[in-house]
Amino acid sequence: MTGQLYDVIHQRRDVRGEFTGAPIPAETLDRVLAAAHAAPSVGLSQPWDFVLVRDRGLREAFHGHVRQERDVFAAGLTGEQADRFSRIKIDGVLESTMSIVVTYDPERGSPAVLGRHAIADAGLYSVCLAIQNLWLAATAERLGVGWVSFYREPFVQKLLEIPARIRPVAWLCLGPVTHLERVPDLERHGWRQRRPWQDAVHHDRWDN
Amino acid sequence: MTGQLYDVIHQRRDVRGEFTGAPIPAETLDRVLAAAHAAPSVGLSQPWDFVLVRDRGLREAFHGHVRQERDVFAAGLTGEQADRFSRIKIDGVLESTMSIVVTYDPERGSPAVLGRHAIADAGLYSVCLAIQNLWLAATAERLGVGWVSFYREPFVQKLLEIPARIRPVAWLCLGPVTHLERVPDLERHGWRQRRPWQDAVHHDRWDN
Repeated sequence: MTGQLYDVIHQRRDVRGEFTGAPIPAETLDRVLAAAHAAPSVGLSQPWDFVLVRDRGLREAFHGHVRQERDVFAAGLTGEQADRFSRIKIDGVLESTMSIVVTYDPERGSPAVLGRHAIADAGLYSVCLAIQNLWLAATAERLGVGWVSFYREPFVQKLLEIPARIRPVAWLCLGPVTHLERVPDLERHGWRQRRPWQDAVHHDRWDN
Repeated sequence: MTGQLYDVIHQRRDVRGEFTGAPIPAETLDRVLAAAHAAPSVGLSQPWDFVLVRDRGLREAFHGHVRQERDVFAAGLTGEQADRFSRIKIDGVLESTMSIVVTYDPERGSPAVLGRHAIADAGLYSVCLAIQNLWLAATAERLGVGWVSFYREPFVQKLLEIPARIRPVAWLCLGPVTHLERVPDLERHGWRQRRPWQDAVHHDRWDN
């Protein structure tokens, strides 16, 4: 893989099963974090933080919670859908090298965050932009990223001693991988197909 | 500028004043939209849409609304802060070539969106990842992007005839620019300084 933007964007995958657990060089991790931090943010508030979770005990505790939440979701499925879901790996928390929890601080830059008075979620949006920068930088460094979303926010806050006002936005698994799949896992497992990008485009008004 | 990922990430700016209004080649716009659409999404739901707004009347109507919301925000400021804000240009809606409104459809992929049962906002996060892909692709194409957030969502829904269940997430101005500034506008105008990325990093637990 080259570090060309379009290559990285199209080769990036949400990784579950391909982590090797090999170490990440410190300077590589620094470049990835600096890239995340270079994201745009509403009113230049930079409301994100990155909790680097290497501790095995913390990751095992989170993984146990994820398994419980997987069961909660599975209980709502029936028939073919339940069958497909049973074959899908939903996280690589223990196999990956480390985790990065990305958080949102709504008070950073307050009270007058330029551009946030009309849209309360604008700060949360900024955090997501940083996450995508991180994901692309990691991909360019030949690292895999897997976003785990089978968890309850209060569990993560308590586990990592995150203050009540700070919201966990993403639990990301990070590390070297054997390879990146060409087709997303959920498509390979028949869960859902991608749609053509042209179907997402409208002109001037929604129905045009 | 090259199309190397790290160069693009660090050279990307939130553009207000540098739009030329020159046309965007169709194939360039296609690459940018395809890059946006290549973003990861919770449960492969791809819950985003892109409304391309070229119509001058629609952009003028939106611009009028933005000016009103600018006044609302300005009314809450006093002293030096009010003075600084008065010198900051907050949008390039009329000078840019076109706008792209990015929306979120919470029903896409429902009822069982894999990975969204525990985190209601996960679909909204996916839309933001697509926005950052779009922003970086545009930057690599030497186009500027400016995210305007001085608006009320119902105004945009009504203006573009967007159905009630669909949420506008971003109004982006897009087009060729004379140049990209090296330092963000808000920093140049003394509104707010960037912080070192190292200050955003925690180890294992928030206070470590």
